[in-house]
Amino acid sequence: MATTASVYIATSLDGFIARENGAIDWLMDANASIPPGEDCGYADFMSTIDVLIMGRNTYEQVAQFDPWPYDGRRVVVLSSRALVFRRGAGIQLEASTESPRSLLTRLSAQGYKRAYVDGGQVIQSFLRERLIHDMTITTIPILLGSGRRLFDTLPREMKLRLASSKSFEFGFTQATYLACADA
Amino acid sequence: MATTASVYIATSLDGFIARENGAIDWLMDANASIPPGEDCGYADFMSTIDVLIMGRNTYEQVAQFDPWPYDGRRVVVLSSRALVFRRGAGIQLEASTESPRSLLTRLSAQGYKRAYVDGGQVIQSFLRERLIHDMTITTIPILLGSGRRLFDTLPREMKLRLASSKSFEFGFTQATYLACADA
Repeated sequence: MATTASVYIATSLDGFIARENGAIDWLMDANASIPPGEDCGYADFMSTIDVLIMGRNTYEQVAQFDPWPYDGRRVVVLSSRALVFRRGAGIQLEASTESPRSLLTRLSAQGYKRAYVDGGQVIQSFLRERLIHDMTITTIPILLGSGRRLFDTLPREMKLRLASSKSFEFGFTQATYLACADA
Repeated sequence: MATTASVYIATSLDGFIARENGAIDWLMDANASIPPGEDCGYADFMSTIDVLIMGRNTYEQVAQFDPWPYDGRRVVVLSSRALVFRRGAGIQLEASTESPRSLLTRLSAQGYKRAYVDGGQVIQSFLRERLIHDMTITTIPILLGSGRRLFDTLPREMKLRLASSKSFEFGFTQATYLACADA
């Protein structure tokens, strides 16, 4: 069984996942409106994930979180630069310069079932190689007006299938798309 | 009463409303999957519209439609270039070089209640002046990978309120957002 590559990410209505400088303060602000006990499906999603793949920018963002949010799960950081990793109990970090396809092949051989692919550039690189299986996208009701985009150019179009969608009373919408096999 | 400026538009999941060359074949293809009798709220929306504002690109697109889709409704085409308009019974076309604010002020004085603002560049120019009241955005389950964007840069962010959302069995999702008064 090949490792499934999955996306779970929030974006502004105008398609930005962070400000130009990488800041996600606007997302933190929006998250503050979420009532206690609601997590927009994050825990359910994470319960299916046995490995994470992210870029350096995303790693540097989450490295500041306390506690470490991926306790006990393997995290592969795709980076062409050397990285000094956070260390601690439950932190399983490694750097890789592999292509998305090579990395997924290796993880598949190691028995990993579902990878959480995170970060704009890494998601885009997986999409360019048509390696994303599903995407859950939560849209925050804001136009940021500038920033780092979730989607960028692709060599060719990709048809998707809407698997589910929902909206939340605090104004978020969420949709899960599956990549179509031959589109 | 000021004329309300409203958006009703379809976009690919990656935020494109047309291909680089303006083509909307992908949207026509997607629309072919809509069952008879379903119009994604378009007729209801149009029933509230007494004037349309669009850019030259959009006009040139719709000018090819037969019959003319805005029969009996005034259509203002914002263009800095001279235009040769289609003529015929029920066609009320005029060109304008006004700013969004000037145009809306004039339409308000003339008693127009709700303007349908259409076309990427025109929508963006209205957003930059914070003149959009509401946006109904239908998301088509496709990544186009390139094209003309619905949203571009804004001088500052704009908070929105999700007024309603729904999904369709053929894979479209639709959300209506209201601009927040002071955000």
